[in-house]
Amino acid sequence: MGLPKDCQVSIRSRFEKGQRNLITDVPGVQVGHVTLKEPEKNIHTGVTAILPHTGNLFRNKVLAGSSVINGFGKSVGLVQVEELGNIETPIIMTNTFGVGTAINALTKYMLKENSDIGTTTGTVNCLVTECNDGELNDIRGMHVDEDHVLQALGDCGAVFEEGAVGAGTGMCCLGVKGGIGSASRLVLCDGQHYTIGAILMSNFGMSGNLMIDGRRIDTRNKVPRSEAEKGSVIIVLATDIPLNERQLKRVAKRSVVALSRTGSFLGNGSGDIAIAFSTANIMPHYSEKNIIEMKMFHDDAIDKVFEATAEAVEEAVVSSLYHAETVKGIRGKEALALKEFL
Amino acid sequence: MGLPKDCQVSIRSRFEKGQRNLITDVPGVQVGHVTLKEPEKNIHTGVTAILPHTGNLFRNKVLAGSSVINGFGKSVGLVQVEELGNIETPIIMTNTFGVGTAINALTKYMLKENSDIGTTTGTVNCLVTECNDGELNDIRGMHVDEDHVLQALGDCGAVFEEGAVGAGTGMCCLGVKGGIGSASRLVLCDGQHYTIGAILMSNFGMSGNLMIDGRRIDTRNKVPRSEAEKGSVIIVLATDIPLNERQLKRVAKRSVVALSRTGSFLGNGSGDIAIAFSTANIMPHYSEKNIIEMKMFHDDAIDKVFEATAEAVEEAVVSSLYHAETVKGIRGKEALALKEFL
Amino acid sequence: MGLPKDCQVSIRSRFEKGQRNLITDVPGVQVGHVTLKEPEKNIHTGVTAILPHTGNLFRNKVLAGSSVINGFGKSVGLVQVEELGNIETPIIMTNTFGVGTAINALTKYMLKENSDIGTTTGTVNCLVTECNDGELNDIRGMHVDEDHVLQALGDCGAVFEEGAVGAGTGMCCLGVKGGIGSASRLVLCDGQHYTIGAILMSNFGMSGNLMIDGRRIDTRNKVPRSEAEKGSVIIVLATDIPLNERQLKRVAKRSVVALSRTGSFLGNGSGDIAIAFSTANIMPHYSEKNIIEMKMFHDDAIDKVFEATAEAVEEAVVSSLYHAETVKGIRGKEALALKEFL
Amino acid sequence: MGLPKDCQVSIRSRFEKGQRNLITDVPGVQVGHVTLKEPEKNIHTGVTAILPHTGNLFRNKVLAGSSVINGFGKSVGLVQVEELGNIETPIIMTNTFGVGTAINALTKYMLKENSDIGTTTGTVNCLVTECNDGELNDIRGMHVDEDHVLQALGDCGAVFEEGAVGAGTGMCCLGVKGGIGSASRLVLCDGQHYTIGAILMSNFGMSGNLMIDGRRIDTRNKVPRSEAEKGSVIIVLATDIPLNERQLKRVAKRSVVALSRTGSFLGNGSGDIAIAFSTANIMPHYSEKNIIEMKMFHDDAIDKVFEATAEAVEEAVVSSLYHAETVKGIRGKEALALKEFL
Repeated sequence: MGLPKDCQVSIRSRFEKGQRNLITDVPGVQVGHVTLKEPEKNIHTGVTAILPHTGNLFRNKVLAGSSVINGFGKSVGLVQVEELGNIETPIIMTNTFGVGTAINALTKYMLKENSDIGTTTGTVNCLVTECNDGELNDIRGMHVDEDHVLQALGDCGAVFEEGAVGAGTGMCCLGVKGGIGSASRLVLCDGQHYTIGAILMSNFGMSGNLMIDGRRIDTRNKVPRSEAEKGSVIIVLATDIPLNERQLKRVAKRSVVALSRTGSFLGNGSGDIAIAFSTANIMPHYSEKNIIEMKMFHDDAIDKVFEATAEAVEEAVVSSLYHAETVKGIRGKEALALKEFL
Repeated sequence: MGLPKDCQVSIRSRFEKGQRNLITDVPGVQVGHVTLKEPEKNIHTGVTAILPHTGNLFRNKVLAGSSVINGFGKSVGLVQVEELGNIETPIIMTNTFGVGTAINALTKYMLKENSDIGTTTGTVNCLVTECNDGELNDIRGMHVDEDHVLQALGDCGAVFEEGAVGAGTGMCCLGVKGGIGSASRLVLCDGQHYTIGAILMSNFGMSGNLMIDGRRIDTRNKVPRSEAEKGSVIIVLATDIPLNERQLKRVAKRSVVALSRTGSFLGNGSGDIAIAFSTANIMPHYSEKNIIEMKMFHDDAIDKVFEATAEAVEEAVVSSLYHAETVKGIRGKEALALKEFL
Repeated sequence: MGLPKDCQVSIRSRFEKGQRNLITDVPGVQVGHVTLKEPEKNIHTGVTAILPHTGNLFRNKVLAGSSVINGFGKSVGLVQVEELGNIETPIIMTNTFGVGTAINALTKYMLKENSDIGTTTGTVNCLVTECNDGELNDIRGMHVDEDHVLQALGDCGAVFEEGAVGAGTGMCCLGVKGGIGSASRLVLCDGQHYTIGAILMSNFGMSGNLMIDGRRIDTRNKVPRSEAEKGSVIIVLATDIPLNERQLKRVAKRSVVALSRTGSFLGNGSGDIAIAFSTANIMPHYSEKNIIEMKMFHDDAIDKVFEATAEAVEEAVVSSLYHAETVKGIRGKEALALKEFL
Repeated sequence: MGLPKDCQVSIRSRFEKGQRNLITDVPGVQVGHVTLKEPEKNIHTGVTAILPHTGNLFRNKVLAGSSVINGFGKSVGLVQVEELGNIETPIIMTNTFGVGTAINALTKYMLKENSDIGTTTGTVNCLVTECNDGELNDIRGMHVDEDHVLQALGDCGAVFEEGAVGAGTGMCCLGVKGGIGSASRLVLCDGQHYTIGAILMSNFGMSGNLMIDGRRIDTRNKVPRSEAEKGSVIIVLATDIPLNERQLKRVAKRSVVALSRTGSFLGNGSGDIAIAFSTANIMPHYSEKNIIEMKMFHDDAIDKVFEATAEAVEEAVVSSLYHAETVKGIRGKEALALKEFL
């Protein structure tokens, strides 16, 4: 839902918002969560799954591009996205030490759906992203198991929660409680409305640096400034605009505008990674033809896509904070909700 | 000088400014301008030269890294900087169609100083950067000649002007008159003060998007919003902190934070390029030893360098606008000074 | 013409050669030379121009990709090719210190053809490539002037010479006389023949390392082994297969296979750069539509394109040597023809 | 041991071989295998572990660089190696669907050794590489478990087997049985001998393309040529030469020379990835000092390192084939030993 109309914070919008103001405004995109929250065991973690479409993704890949804004991160699958320019599995978000398990679960999920993988055709490139929720969560306990990943995949739908849910359960951002945020914008192309949607897991930035629409929100009276900008952020962008791989990479890169405007300076210890895909250009796994028809966008008209992307990601960052409640985690650490500072 | 203390605009500063608040606060760095301004002939252009140090740069190269924020640009020499991680000539800024002439002038300048180039040793990698000043300047007239480049090199010193001077003479930025801006910050490392300095040529962004320290400056009443974010920005960063090539690339990348905060969304048509060098690590052209001693920085402590860089570049952008006066250029185009909107 | 059928050297061919066995077998591609040869003045240099098509390249750009195999080089224009994935001017090859002049000449050539550049539209990205011919040529004399570039452009046609001509006049390669080489291969796609063609300027490798089709050609009895692999190689690939930007980058990258097989180990001092374009996907400068139709290739079928590319480039390397005659250059340096060693 | 002196194949050597002619000639480097071979269950897979040194790798990281020669691969950890230029865990090789399990095992191994990870310091970047052994192995069965990874780590020593062992158990290469290969070369720097060593898992190339020292080994009479170059290759390079991150990346890139010379054209479906590290430059996890002393190499002298690298990798490829015996795998597929064709 992004930021509600009457809430205390807002982001200047030049572009119209989508109907749900979520990434799922892009037709076919679905999101699901599993939230693992057992405070007595210091478990504050989870899994979020994103389906680029609801068909067979291995058979019908979506064109994609990515941008490693800062590479202090352990996300998996980006090498092949860069080489081939497509995504062939759901995208999983989880905590850093859940990555191995998420790959295993996603591999089995893909094998079950596709008997050709590993027999008559090649393998499959699992896309698994992560942030470190160790400030609140007992990350060393490795509490994400394969069933959780499958549950998140099973939970996928067009409506989903934001805030301290799913993979965002244990995240901290810019001195306050982080989590999952989403937003969308409409862009007029050739007389027709298209959608660009963002979902992100916010775990970046230092206490004292939060900015909302140009206004500084100083949290240092309650949250001491850390020495370093730790944490990370994973941003997934979806659109039905027929961008090609190069253009999707350019769009992914524009996420950095929103990170900068909300207070990040792209700290050393942050794994800041953006992935963008288009549902309008499907690449079949099997093709009788060598030469296939594609649509692309004229780069001279792409500024509106860039600006709408920056706006959607900026709202998604703030929305992730706005929807998150205060959480008490491991080692007595408390992450206060943004609302405590408004 | 960056932004004067009592001017109407300021940038929040967590770091102390250098003595001059210019890139030349980094010991040894010098800057020179040639301003070409003949309004009756529609000439509004020039050349700016930056010396990483005042010795023989070919013999004693500085370690360097670069970041192509958006590659719609014609800068020259970056391929070799990326491969070898060093700079071996002064850095020239000029207009897009002055690049060929600047290479020729810089080549001759280097040949004159170094009789070994092209005879007993290899060639030389000229570093020439550019923005398109065609909105104000008769760029098709190609008015920069080789002497102008040599004059800019000859003009180099520790004190230099900002605003609509040198290569910045004909630049436009975020709806107002752009130009040359500079600023510096001090960073405490191992108990000692080091300096990071920035100089830039601002020619980016759309009318209506200018932000100063979080505040929007709407120029659209006097400057119609363009359809696309055209223009470019060249940012040069200097430091005496002993960063290595990889780290200088990381520092260069942080310029994007400042561009985003002043209103850019990294438009399609913008050649946004940052180059960073360190005067603390000198790479000799000739070495008897294969193995040489270098200093590098512990990445875990680099956040202060990143944040100081973002701050210096942000001030340099605003300073470039603050010091520029209104200019009437070709085809009746008028670029209003920022001061008209304060 | 590549390697004649009955010459003493050959490259194993799995793919059929094109009619001329030149890059100009790709319909529309043209090549022109100007050879500057005044031995008494130690001038052994020149210019080679490549037209991706004979129409207005600025208005109708070709999709393109590039690969910097080793970046010790001064080629110009690659930053924008990487960002936008297209080429909008002829491609110029010349010596390292001719680059500035070639940019100036090419800029004027483009301005003359396009009155909108620098007035109602942006600037233009000149693509100029180089190798250092200083071993034979008085490179410090900067003997290439703007007229030479225009003459090479004017000389363009479907038939052109190989060997020590054009930009290849003063080049040395793997211990023998280098120069311009070209070859082409046919690839069957969807039942139809397409062409991939290569042209290159060979100036790479060490004496003693030359290999032709697996056989070592030892030149060290007449040519002392140098300490370092100096020089460079520029490879331009053309095709009428509808590859997109990402795929053209992949194709360009495969040039390295041919360099390795002819004896290079990608030496430090070599600027090894490959550029690939497709004439099948034209990107208009002006478009009323945001969304445009393109063709691309299914990556699963691209291996034949990769292998044909490696083969064409390998033959082009050997052809550049085969057609070059012995040249006596500056400082008494003699570059012996390959034929002296067969 | 690389290729024995009196075997039927050899690689021309300009550089002296190390004592064992293995990557472990670099002091401190160790390698261990677990071979999983149960033909009745179609299990032909395994794990190979490489220790850059035998101390605490998290506390004392090695500088590193990587080169994605072709990115159709699922290796994990490269994003952070690129950003930070170091390796902080052992390197694991296994099959594609063993990656998730290997990450889990390696994470637990690192957590056990380092109680600070995930509590008082950040997380850890596991480096896990893979090839697809599905042609011989029941890869869908996911037969690698966490204990296998720990066993491979426990097996590490200076002496290890080559051929169809460890992660190489089920690999195929250029039409014959692939596997693990290793070799080393000595390089004289400043009057002292240093070592560059290679280990690789060979699973690349098409039947019919194998070349050994320039000679073609045609396997097509017994092994039909496949349509596409499938499979992959993982190359790990170790050295005690004090190269920095940028230089290690350059060294990694030179692996492509050896792949090309043994018959690869860098096929579409191949995940060809090289990783290079130096044991001479240790980066401490914790440092009281911001500024630290490092050694680097003068790039002008690096050609010998490049050429020795190409030579070691070429021998390692051939050695991996030479030591592998014929294997009968899943679906009746037989991979014949190279020896069958000599």
